[in-house]
Amino acid sequence: MTYFAEQNSIEAVNGRMSVDAPPRLRRVMAALVRHLHAFIKEVELTQEEWERAIDFLTKTGQMCSAERQEFILLSDVLGVSMLVDAINNRRPAGATENTVLGPFYVAGAPERQMGDNISSDGKGESCLYTGRVIDLQGRPIAGARVDVWSDNAEGFYSVQQPGIQDKWNNRGVFITGSDGKYEFIGIKPVSYPIPNDGPVGQLLRLLGRHPYRPAHMHFMVTAPGYQRLVTHTFVGDDPFLESDAVFGVKASLIAPFERVQDGRTVWRSYYDFVLAPIE
Amino acid sequence: MTYFAEQNSIEAVNGRMSVDAPPRLRRVMAALVRHLHAFIKEVELTQEEWERAIDFLTKTGQMCSAERQEFILLSDVLGVSMLVDAINNRRPAGATENTVLGPFYVAGAPERQMGDNISSDGKGESCLYTGRVIDLQGRPIAGARVDVWSDNAEGFYSVQQPGIQDKWNNRGVFITGSDGKYEFIGIKPVSYPIPNDGPVGQLLRLLGRHPYRPAHMHFMVTAPGYQRLVTHTFVGDDPFLESDAVFGVKASLIAPFERVQDGRTVWRSYYDFVLAPIE
Repeated sequence: MTYFAEQNSIEAVNGRMSVDAPPRLRRVMAALVRHLHAFIKEVELTQEEWERAIDFLTKTGQMCSAERQEFILLSDVLGVSMLVDAINNRRPAGATENTVLGPFYVAGAPERQMGDNISSDGKGESCLYTGRVIDLQGRPIAGARVDVWSDNAEGFYSVQQPGIQDKWNNRGVFITGSDGKYEFIGIKPVSYPIPNDGPVGQLLRLLGRHPYRPAHMHFMVTAPGYQRLVTHTFVGDDPFLESDAVFGVKASLIAPFERVQDGRTVWRSYYDFVLAPIE
Repeated sequence: MTYFAEQNSIEAVNGRMSVDAPPRLRRVMAALVRHLHAFIKEVELTQEEWERAIDFLTKTGQMCSAERQEFILLSDVLGVSMLVDAINNRRPAGATENTVLGPFYVAGAPERQMGDNISSDGKGESCLYTGRVIDLQGRPIAGARVDVWSDNAEGFYSVQQPGIQDKWNNRGVFITGSDGKYEFIGIKPVSYPIPNDGPVGQLLRLLGRHPYRPAHMHFMVTAPGYQRLVTHTFVGDDPFLESDAVFGVKASLIAPFERVQDGRTVWRSYYDFVLAPIE
């Protein structure tokens, strides 16, 4: 019998799993243990650092509530959320890229008429969002469901301010017609800090990182026969584009936001969403 | 500017750390991100698995309380606690090996006279624990502090049963004289399951692993000029020796437990503790 030792630690732990455990779980756990032990060995983690890690994880769990998910924030700032999103949404060239869903999506937003204004608090600079939902060949997709949401002019999503903002402020669903076009009025979104009064905020400060996300409008676009697209369009002149705290920016998602002279709105942003078929 | 992508995910995250962050923190976090992303890429973690991981970590944090540390249990069953202990307590040949402290140590146990009985609940089979505290040259160490603790005959430590067990049941401190000898009466300890009614217990069940630790007596031996020794002696005939849920067993720590014919106790266990000097 060989007992656990520094040299055989990975084999000792993984050898304990039952051969009858679910194969995928076995594979994931074996890889987790292998990488986790390799990390500890590489940095020769001290006892005190281990204690700090236990304390950090405990506080992160205890910060979680119905309104706050600190472990998702941790995943976000370590690039894990974006990495999982990237691995699970590899698309053919030409298709619009995914980015993180984020914690502020709310299902069930009201379906609105094309051209409607989703912003009900009268704050911020108005912006006309328009473009088409098309396939890889550039053909319009009819009946696509375009679910949109953004923060308000103070950088808060409606779910962060119940009782202050209307539940559906800066949210709405639009269904495309045969031309594939969408059009709605919202505000030009603003950059905002992710919640940073917990352990994750403390970690960011220790690492010398800021908590800001560049301004963006969220889109979830679905249509039968096509892969679900979850993405944002980013405002091109945002100072945090190159340092998004959660690594959500992709060059292809930076959209033009043009100041308009005598339109219905102060700004106008045109963006086409290209859906990839379900293979 | 290069934005985050699957291919450059590690560099994107680690490149965000300030060069002014504490050097050790930079090194540990950079290695953590590198190994964590490598793990996710290797198994191509699905979105659903990521959600399960977030849920598991959240529940693990929320299970923690003043009496229960579920993240330490997680560290234990993944071999992390033992690995950190091994890395931080490499000793010269001949010195007694360390093993995990465990969650049931209580500082401040009463100092007792050599030969005293630490077991006050009248349960279990009595055992005489005896031996010497010596240096690498076999010379007795005087004034060594031998702090001992074990479960009771039902497999519970006193801290797990406040109001049922006396706080210092099966606990005591003994100070060696010039001969380096220690001697006390306790019980022959019994194997017991680690707490398994939380997320960690659920994980063990999914992996087809049992939650038991083989029977052991805990020792913390300290003396000026020597490295602190935190270890157990294991009962040699325990059925869980080769499958300790927390990987604490080392061959050198398996001690003889001999049945005695007409002594003060039913069992007798002799073990010498060899302390390494502080280098």
